[in-house]
Amino acid sequence: MDIVMDADALNVFLAREFPQVAADYRVGRVDAGGLEARLIVSDANLRPGGTVSGPSIFALADLAIYCAILARIGPVALAVTTNASIDFMRKPEAGKELVAQVRLLKLGRVLAVAEALIYSDGGVEPVARCSMTYSIPPKRQDSV
Amino acid sequence: MDIVMDADALNVFLAREFPQVAADYRVGRVDAGGLEARLIVSDANLRPGGTVSGPSIFALADLAIYCAILARIGPVALAVTTNASIDFMRKPEAGKELVAQVRLLKLGRVLAVAEALIYSDGGVEPVARCSMTYSIPPKRQDSV
Amino acid sequence: MDIVMDADALNVFLAREFPQVAADYRVGRVDAGGLEARLIVSDANLRPGGTVSGPSIFALADLAIYCAILARIGPVALAVTTNASIDFMRKPEAGKELVAQVRLLKLGRVLAVAEALIYSDGGVEPVARCSMTYSIPPKRQDSV
Amino acid sequence: MDIVMDADALNVFLAREFPQVAADYRVGRVDAGGLEARLIVSDANLRPGGTVSGPSIFALADLAIYCAILARIGPVALAVTTNASIDFMRKPEAGKELVAQVRLLKLGRVLAVAEALIYSDGGVEPVARCSMTYSIPPKRQDSV
Repeated sequence: MDIVMDADALNVFLAREFPQVAADYRVGRVDAGGLEARLIVSDANLRPGGTVSGPSIFALADLAIYCAILARIGPVALAVTTNASIDFMRKPEAGKELVAQVRLLKLGRVLAVAEALIYSDGGVEPVARCSMTYSIPPKRQDSV
Repeated sequence: MDIVMDADALNVFLAREFPQVAADYRVGRVDAGGLEARLIVSDANLRPGGTVSGPSIFALADLAIYCAILARIGPVALAVTTNASIDFMRKPEAGKELVAQVRLLKLGRVLAVAEALIYSDGGVEPVARCSMTYSIPPKRQDSV
Repeated sequence: MDIVMDADALNVFLAREFPQVAADYRVGRVDAGGLEARLIVSDANLRPGGTVSGPSIFALADLAIYCAILARIGPVALAVTTNASIDFMRKPEAGKELVAQVRLLKLGRVLAVAEALIYSDGGVEPVARCSMTYSIPPKRQDSV
Repeated sequence: MDIVMDADALNVFLAREFPQVAADYRVGRVDAGGLEARLIVSDANLRPGGTVSGPSIFALADLAIYCAILARIGPVALAVTTNASIDFMRKPEAGKELVAQVRLLKLGRVLAVAEALIYSDGGVEPVARCSMTYSIPPKRQDSV
């Protein structure tokens, strides 16, 4: 499937549509199979011991999968998560950014499914695994 | 199973252990079957249109289930989420607090399982459904 | 939401549409909030020790949730499961039938969400918890 | 992690421990990252239209992930599934065997996490995605 928004376009879109959170994330790469995005960890994301919180990991997976879908269908702000499943497997390393590697598994007319593996920057074993289903609005009239 | 921390004790525990986020939540009720907690929605939780974001709903479910477990095993700060599954079913109402109703389904020696239904305050149809597994540290030496 | 198929109608539907498996299940009750169905356990469902297998528990939850949806939308054979999450919490009791208690959480135009708790017959603590999303065909032209 | 059971050893183990179902499956490959197993589809697995049922796909994922864990820890019959999440994405092709490709993500002391992609034999787009958590018995005294 053709890529219609590259990493730069996605970062501009996030800054405009989600100004409250966009500064925390950066889309780094969009390719045929998926996308890479990272969380610029700040104090608000941390738990005692300096580790990133579960909800912050979830939020990164959600944003990265959302962007992987938009990269292929364009800036449809109203695509919404309908289901998510996440396994927290290892404690993130203190002081490291988190990187999400997304693989798009299905992009249907009304539902898209993708999975993300989350790593501490430079790590080889995933911190978490997440799969999500997004519902895509029936008409893309909300496209910018 | 006996309740060893009531709502007041849980709110005090949250304020001490998680000062960055405790002000956003309030545990309101602990009873034999579970617990009720709410998210005091602020701008940081909102998406365009005034609706609460998916990650904020996830964070509320996570906190509420964590507290439902602690209510029965005491202040074990190191209990960690290992798995979560969430269905986002309806758009939260703008301007309403979110309320999580937790039901504890299993409290084993090493794993606990609970589910939460999330409502807009006063609503009758759930906004989201979430189930989570927590891993409980083998020895409760970290108890306060 | 009105009930358009009761337990008898659902059992007749299953026998006609799914003759290979219908004899293993029995829908026992349909009410405003959900449905109860049971698995008539046979050797094919057992694992060493006489316990019911995980896939058999999954199959019961799937059938029970499917029937809870059909009870409200009529005999739409083509409704399909798109997502399922299941927690296996306790070992089923040997020699007991399994009972699924379904609660329908959302019945939308294109997606339905329900959860099931599974018990050994007569038990008070659930063996498993399952939530599923079903996709409902856009036009109900396949209705019988 | 070292492989302690290869495909032949796993097939022998399945035939001995699970005689009721072993003939339906075949482990084909075990390698550093995971395992491949297939379902020899029979009438019992089919739904109207010749497609493989959801519970049969679940059962294949469960068996394949179980074997991927045993390949590394040896014949521990009592490892049990504690959680599973599955997305059904496409209809399996009629008349084709189903192939599960497993990737082991974590093998801890008490919990293992793996994911499986399921394909119709020869297909390039997955029919389903599944992730599971297994609980590993604390002492491996049940090893054969």
